Amino acid sequence: MSGNTFGKLLTLTTFGESHGAAVGGIIDGFPAGIKIDTRFIENELHRRRPGHSSLTSPRAETDTIEILSGILDDVTLGTPIGFIIKNTDQKTADYQDLKDVFRPSHADFTYQQKFGIRDHRGGGRASARETAVRVAGGAFAKIFLQRKGIKIFGYTRKIGPVEIPANFSVSEQQDVERNEVRCPHPGTAVKMIEYIEKLQQEGDSTGGVVGCLITGVPPGIGEPVFNRLQADLASAVMSINAAKGFEYGMGFHSAEMKGSEHNDPFKADSTSAGKKKIQPATNKAGGILGGISTGEDIYFNVAFKPPSSINKQTHFMDEYGNDKQLTLQGRYDPCVIPRAVPVVEAMAALVIADHMLIDSGYHL
Amino acid sequence: MSGNTFGKLLTLTTFGESHGAAVGGIIDGFPAGIKIDTRFIENELHRRRPGHSSLTSPRAETDTIEILSGILDDVTLGTPIGFIIKNTDQKTADYQDLKDVFRPSHADFTYQQKFGIRDHRGGGRASARETAVRVAGGAFAKIFLQRKGIKIFGYTRKIGPVEIPANFSVSEQQDVERNEVRCPHPGTAVKMIEYIEKLQQEGDSTGGVVGCLITGVPPGIGEPVFNRLQADLASAVMSINAAKGFEYGMGFHSAEMKGSEHNDPFKADSTSAGKKKIQPATNKAGGILGGISTGEDIYFNVAFKPPSSINKQTHFMDEYGNDKQLTLQGRYDPCVIPRAVPVVEAMAALVIADHMLIDSGYHL
Amino acid sequence: MSGNTFGKLLTLTTFGESHGAAVGGIIDGFPAGIKIDTRFIENELHRRRPGHSSLTSPRAETDTIEILSGILDDVTLGTPIGFIIKNTDQKTADYQDLKDVFRPSHADFTYQQKFGIRDHRGGGRASARETAVRVAGGAFAKIFLQRKGIKIFGYTRKIGPVEIPANFSVSEQQDVERNEVRCPHPGTAVKMIEYIEKLQQEGDSTGGVVGCLITGVPPGIGEPVFNRLQADLASAVMSINAAKGFEYGMGFHSAEMKGSEHNDPFKADSTSAGKKKIQPATNKAGGILGGISTGEDIYFNVAFKPPSSINKQTHFMDEYGNDKQLTLQGRYDPCVIPRAVPVVEAMAALVIADHMLIDSGYHL
Amino acid sequence: MSGNTFGKLLTLTTFGESHGAAVGGIIDGFPAGIKIDTRFIENELHRRRPGHSSLTSPRAETDTIEILSGILDDVTLGTPIGFIIKNTDQKTADYQDLKDVFRPSHADFTYQQKFGIRDHRGGGRASARETAVRVAGGAFAKIFLQRKGIKIFGYTRKIGPVEIPANFSVSEQQDVERNEVRCPHPGTAVKMIEYIEKLQQEGDSTGGVVGCLITGVPPGIGEPVFNRLQADLASAVMSINAAKGFEYGMGFHSAEMKGSEHNDPFKADSTSAGKKKIQPATNKAGGILGGISTGEDIYFNVAFKPPSSINKQTHFMDEYGNDKQLTLQGRYDPCVIPRAVPVVEAMAALVIADHMLIDSGYHL
Repeated sequence: MSGNTFGKLLTLTTFGESHGAAVGGIIDGFPAGIKIDTRFIENELHRRRPGHSSLTSPRAETDTIEILSGILDDVTLGTPIGFIIKNTDQKTADYQDLKDVFRPSHADFTYQQKFGIRDHRGGGRASARETAVRVAGGAFAKIFLQRKGIKIFGYTRKIGPVEIPANFSVSEQQDVERNEVRCPHPGTAVKMIEYIEKLQQEGDSTGGVVGCLITGVPPGIGEPVFNRLQADLASAVMSINAAKGFEYGMGFHSAEMKGSEHNDPFKADSTSAGKKKIQPATNKAGGILGGISTGEDIYFNVAFKPPSSINKQTHFMDEYGNDKQLTLQGRYDPCVIPRAVPVVEAMAALVIADHMLIDSGYHL
Repeated sequence: MSGNTFGKLLTLTTFGESHGAAVGGIIDGFPAGIKIDTRFIENELHRRRPGHSSLTSPRAETDTIEILSGILDDVTLGTPIGFIIKNTDQKTADYQDLKDVFRPSHADFTYQQKFGIRDHRGGGRASARETAVRVAGGAFAKIFLQRKGIKIFGYTRKIGPVEIPANFSVSEQQDVERNEVRCPHPGTAVKMIEYIEKLQQEGDSTGGVVGCLITGVPPGIGEPVFNRLQADLASAVMSINAAKGFEYGMGFHSAEMKGSEHNDPFKADSTSAGKKKIQPATNKAGGILGGISTGEDIYFNVAFKPPSSINKQTHFMDEYGNDKQLTLQGRYDPCVIPRAVPVVEAMAALVIADHMLIDSGYHL
Repeated sequence: MSGNTFGKLLTLTTFGESHGAAVGGIIDGFPAGIKIDTRFIENELHRRRPGHSSLTSPRAETDTIEILSGILDDVTLGTPIGFIIKNTDQKTADYQDLKDVFRPSHADFTYQQKFGIRDHRGGGRASARETAVRVAGGAFAKIFLQRKGIKIFGYTRKIGPVEIPANFSVSEQQDVERNEVRCPHPGTAVKMIEYIEKLQQEGDSTGGVVGCLITGVPPGIGEPVFNRLQADLASAVMSINAAKGFEYGMGFHSAEMKGSEHNDPFKADSTSAGKKKIQPATNKAGGILGGISTGEDIYFNVAFKPPSSINKQTHFMDEYGNDKQLTLQGRYDPCVIPRAVPVVEAMAALVIADHMLIDSGYHL
Repeated sequence: MSGNTFGKLLTLTTFGESHGAAVGGIIDGFPAGIKIDTRFIENELHRRRPGHSSLTSPRAETDTIEILSGILDDVTLGTPIGFIIKNTDQKTADYQDLKDVFRPSHADFTYQQKFGIRDHRGGGRASARETAVRVAGGAFAKIFLQRKGIKIFGYTRKIGPVEIPANFSVSEQQDVERNEVRCPHPGTAVKMIEYIEKLQQEGDSTGGVVGCLITGVPPGIGEPVFNRLQADLASAVMSINAAKGFEYGMGFHSAEMKGSEHNDPFKADSTSAGKKKIQPATNKAGGILGGISTGEDIYFNVAFKPPSSINKQTHFMDEYGNDKQLTLQGRYDPCVIPRAVPVVEAMAALVIADHMLIDSGYHL
């Protein structure tokens, strides 16, 4: 397996199987002299963690981060930040039945095809547990971005057929942590919870859409061709387990629009210095033109498929082509959307922070 | 500008402004000993070229590729393939009026913000002309993939509100080159053409969706975490001008699905060797599980916004915040979807070929 | 700090300060299905470790590696191998005096210049402790290479003015572990030890040269331009603490040679298949031509400066420009050459293994 | 062939065979708004060009650079700079005899082993002609560095046994362009020329050493572990054809030194602001500590082997193992050292400029 490093100047390299000793990572290229509040990082990990809601998997991951390097007296040294998160709740025995089973729509089959071997315990490297490391890495990126006035705000937009109203305006001021589904629209949140509970009873699962809003990015960030900001954001979030789609600005809806509807005119505001400040008057573009930030809000959506592990299913095929009847007893979520919110935020934070560093070279 | 190199082992590095001397690129890592049919590459370039349909921009780009290295007697040497495509139809004067104008929803504004300077002639580096180089690079990748039995088939799925029927099954056997819009469903093609012609008369433009089908990829290709096949495909196509969304498999529709609907069960076919061959019985996954190919068809969609240059618009804002009235006289397309088809294919081909090379290291 | 990842397909990313909680790393891209003998890795770490010879620093590093991922039942999974080596002998208090001192020829000064902050305890990230992680990573690479019949053999060539005789032929059959200086020529080893002991008494230190011989590399490995095998080897070993020079083949001596002396003629041996096998008859080239392996032995030398920490020196300058008198009480080596041997081997192993993986893409 | 891209943020990607249509490259990541004097670039190319001295190959390369993108009205746009240098003096017929010959100590053999095919005309991609593109890329880097007060000064240190006196102090003020061998010490230059002329008559060739001095690099540039400044410089120059060794600071001589001799004490100078400025009082380190620049001069040496093409040799082995008698009639140099000077400078300039850009991210 190659490809476990993300980023160019600010990089996150990760390791870890779901039921091995630990997952962890190395953040490289993080600027020196930045004060790190460990509680913030732990809180971000807590937001991703299953088990703290009746709606999610009961796995009791404690997700305590141990920072092994790169920080002295709570301040970054500029050297790589190595960290681990131990896997404490490893019930390997739970997975014995799965040893030779290819669970439908899981990566069991493809890992076996690629590597000729796989860690069958809880999905191994393909487990969503891997995303804990992304959240930790993203938490560091967020701390850096906060100093620059940049905020990353993720939220649940849709769960199954339940969606926030089209005319509802999302703002980073809204508090999505107040409800279990991280939906900024309270009425919709109630319906989402009902929908998930219903599926839970059926032993089924549901997909959904995570929205993300990034505010405060100065104009001029991003590289215009292959590393367009939207290309790097797409790569970042499409690398998350179960992500099936990415769109920014008007997204797939833009396909139906006319140029005269979609274009954002510019406006000129007088500044105190007597000079005019030009910026887009509307923001259908989603804060990016030609791969470079306009200075307006960046917003995008990520579609996730329903979790493949469902209790409804009891027939499986083993590696030899035989039918195998078993009941999955592990820790399964009927809906991962609320937990995907901090993962999407983390990946977005890594992209924006990396591009901030890359861009600085132009202003030497 | 950094980020003009795409790929890891098989790389394409590109250069060129729309109205400079030439655009071009360097393909590195291409295997040796492969026969190159230059006519195939020229035909791919022809497919992207504007001006050969009443529906597209009248710019008469001849797009003749000059291969400068890497090939001897039509066979690849394994050394980098350098090539240029001269810009022959450069009417710089056409763009004089635009020198200090920020066209709405173009990259004029963001380039100026980032670099403090820009080539105003036809969009400079931000012009769709840059995609000619991608198509040339992709054509080489396609030649390599054809030898492996892999085909990349792009087509127009939707233009404005006109879409191919939901129950229409796309196959790489269909001939999309027979109609001007590259739609595999003839009846829909007619309606798409009518819609574009109508917008052309209004001086407006439309967005659309390009679909892409990749057949013949063996199981086991792709890297499971950050370089998941879908992440690299998303990055590849979201780096194309005007792309606003990417989805694969059930895509955004999967958000509304239940696990019991979305899961692909496995089936076991007996092989002549008496062993059973296991593979997914259905392919809602879109040919990828855990970032790795399953051996089934890979399929995805890319949404494009409507072109920002429209004749309808006559009021612009210049860099100083003043209103400027002018009529765009350059070469504008009411719809770029048909021309985007070969660009999407090219980017997909580069991704798959690169991953084929990366994967080979596992089987040493 | 960026640049803590080494390699292209097989990568090693490292972290860790000398007196932090741990040093460690992530090996990515390592092939699946390879049996790992942990004792071999521990033995490699033992070879680098100080404290097991009267000639080296008395720091009692136990250097126990904890492998956290990527291996199941002693076999590699193809997923990233995360590992840590805890820092057990951290006497932070020993370094209190150094908090505001720039030790001559150490990195204290430059880290402060770059980052505005530094971990003063034992050199922090600039400590030779960082090389333990390289040795661990290299041990994995060696296991891979052994399966391909490739051996990496490092040895001490020179310590101060004491050098192995010019006409002595080095072979990977020689056992360098039998003497404390890892010199394959027993008579020279005795003189080297005497020389080091003399310097130890003087409170001084000495430089030296490590030689390295790589056997069994098949012809055709390496990339011909910027990633020439010798360029990547040079980069690999010049990134080791205290390395001041690299040469391969005839090295600096070749500057004085004539073409007629330096050229290696080819010879043709008849093979059992009746075809002739062509290969260089001599190997002044050092096993590489045009950046690509010839199939002959690869051999190179690395010069190391004398350790900057010496007991002789008692006057230092602090950050404010004041003279500060102190006796270094930490763990200092009069000569690091014998311990540098496994580090040089490790870096060479990583380079060759990476190039083996990269090369496989050409033979698809 | 992979590995034709050099650098991280400022990259040079190159292509081209010696006797193909052209060599060329793409410079990516070059800052915007920088005035480019094309005559400076042409002069750099002229310095590398053979044929303008009786001592070098008579090949009449005109080496005219055609810049195809990235520059408008002589000012960089921040977009990639594509350029080509046409191969005008291609006497393909001259090389017909070499079609199936493996010239001793050339890359003919290894290219054939790696790729199964090769361009036999004048060495193809392995020809020193490839270095013209490095010189062009380096010329751009030099223009950037000049604005930062950084100078790169290369010179001939040694040719065969003839060397500049050990006590001669090299300064970037010296004019090495006044003599054909680019030696800053006039008396030595005369002896070098005599030595080369003698070998020319014998039909033989000689190696040598190029020295390089870099002044004006601010303290704090470089990455402390794998991308140490010296590691990247070593990689850069060891990737040049015929380079066999690299050393910086005291280099191989440091192996014989004691710590007490090699250490550079610090000194503190009072500044006008009343604060003390601390810097090394001597510079045996060669301007780098822990991989990071100290602010002092960076100096290093590169050893080159004698050119393998000599007229003395008339017996060759062909691919089939047969003896083949022929006289090389192409363009051969008895000594490439003077021409290697601008190539070494170019590679050094690319490294320093790239690290300047990378470093800027730390000061956000």
